[in-house]
Amino acid sequence: MEIATTVAEVRELRAIIARRRWAALQRRPIVGLVPTMGALHEGHASLMNAMVAETDVRLCSIFLNPRQFEDSADLSRYPHALDRDLELCRSAGIDLVFAPSAEEMYPRGFETTVQAGPLSSRWEGEYRIGHYDGVLSVVLKLLNITQADVAYFGEKDFQQLRLVERMTFDFDMEVHILAVHTVREADGLALSSRNALLTEEQRQYAPQIYRALKVAADAFSAGERDSQIILGKAGHELAAWSQQGFSVDYMQVVDPETLAPRTTAQHGDRVLFAGQLGDVRLLDNIMLEEDLTGL
Amino acid sequence: MEIATTVAEVRELRAIIARRRWAALQRRPIVGLVPTMGALHEGHASLMNAMVAETDVRLCSIFLNPRQFEDSADLSRYPHALDRDLELCRSAGIDLVFAPSAEEMYPRGFETTVQAGPLSSRWEGEYRIGHYDGVLSVVLKLLNITQADVAYFGEKDFQQLRLVERMTFDFDMEVHILAVHTVREADGLALSSRNALLTEEQRQYAPQIYRALKVAADAFSAGERDSQIILGKAGHELAAWSQQGFSVDYMQVVDPETLAPRTTAQHGDRVLFAGQLGDVRLLDNIMLEEDLTGL
Repeated sequence: MEIATTVAEVRELRAIIARRRWAALQRRPIVGLVPTMGALHEGHASLMNAMVAETDVRLCSIFLNPRQFEDSADLSRYPHALDRDLELCRSAGIDLVFAPSAEEMYPRGFETTVQAGPLSSRWEGEYRIGHYDGVLSVVLKLLNITQADVAYFGEKDFQQLRLVERMTFDFDMEVHILAVHTVREADGLALSSRNALLTEEQRQYAPQIYRALKVAADAFSAGERDSQIILGKAGHELAAWSQQGFSVDYMQVVDPETLAPRTTAQHGDRVLFAGQLGDVRLLDNIMLEEDLTGL
Repeated sequence: MEIATTVAEVRELRAIIARRRWAALQRRPIVGLVPTMGALHEGHASLMNAMVAETDVRLCSIFLNPRQFEDSADLSRYPHALDRDLELCRSAGIDLVFAPSAEEMYPRGFETTVQAGPLSSRWEGEYRIGHYDGVLSVVLKLLNITQADVAYFGEKDFQQLRLVERMTFDFDMEVHILAVHTVREADGLALSSRNALLTEEQRQYAPQIYRALKVAADAFSAGERDSQIILGKAGHELAAWSQQGFSVDYMQVVDPETLAPRTTAQHGDRVLFAGQLGDVRLLDNIMLEEDLTGL
């Protein structure tokens, strides 16, 4: 596994590895990218496994992007552990890690950015102003730097996934964005680097998020279509949150393309959730699916 | 010469032409692009001549981008003549013209844009709010669609040239931006599609722009370094403008990289000009150069 810290280095190493693969495969190799902010966990490993199965040259970027943290306390608290991250990349079968400094990504004079559209202003956009502009700007840069044919994103950050898809379409980029299912702890908690920041007590309440989402999905597959009723049932699971001073920022049934709220739920809709356990913001979501087992 | 009107078509035709050239040249062909808004003139022909001399596959885009016209009257007035444009492309040696509709470039749901940085807020940016965001968004799309290795821009729109260079650098795009000298009428007026909109009387005053810029450049090469004095001399040439009700929106000595105004002029600085002759906005600029003929 090679490790590059500059744009020039990662381009050169990518070209060398691609040429080697080209000779071995006798065809143009497919280049994959898993962009990460480090503090890697099994969720990232699952993205990497998908990439290793589907591409010929496998890149992973590790960059804690300051421009997507509108709250500097949140940035300084964010977990990092580069040595462990590199170990996980190595065992997942990554060919090339790109781990640049902030100065390498944003040299003096940097000023052009991506402006996310209306899809970014709902949900997380209401709580984190400018966050998605920062996400899209760095994703655009990473895709251009690595010239990836395929890039992998987790479904856990569903709005981010949609926005990245939207950007690559709007900007006519020749890259495929692939979504990978959320990986969960045994108790249902979606894996997230932020989980490490939870206190023992907060950690006990965190699995209620997925339990609530499951209740919503079960209500839908049992035939309920009224979003109010579906969300009301799900909300019961989170009744203890307000007593603990935790907040549910939003839990909504949305159109999976436009992310607009839906009054009458349809097959394929998503329930989006965001909440705050003390200082820790957690996101999760679930797809609403018709029960086809009886057919 | 091939003509494509959709993104899919231009990509396919570009690939076919590139493969043919690859076979003929026995090396990867270099792809060039001249992006235009149509109403082509000898200034565009000069960009195309540079491209034909330096690249192997030559593309020209003709797209009157509505998103860079903040004033809809200005857009509807802008000249267009597709048949003549195609004739000029053909005789210049273009391989492939991309002439999409607005719906093809901005389909329903389009929402992600480029946000130009501080370099865009000065000069033209003060008069045309959002103009450069529209320019950069369409240039990004055209570069991605054509996958050009080299793109050609005229020096006449100097701020635009700098902003495009800045974007390709900030976004880590693997494309070279080449600047081509301004082409002028015999009387010095910089070629522009907007010149066709001038009345006969306005046309008589238009050459005073370049005369003023020449006076500035001559003052500099004669040893004057005080921007105030240089601009004062140049301003005399435009004395008749205010009597005619024409405006000089700005005429300034600027750093050629940052476009910041310069009190003491240096070799390589630019004098930027913008003015309004009735409804018609004209831009021009000149480089300040030391007189080296005596060395």
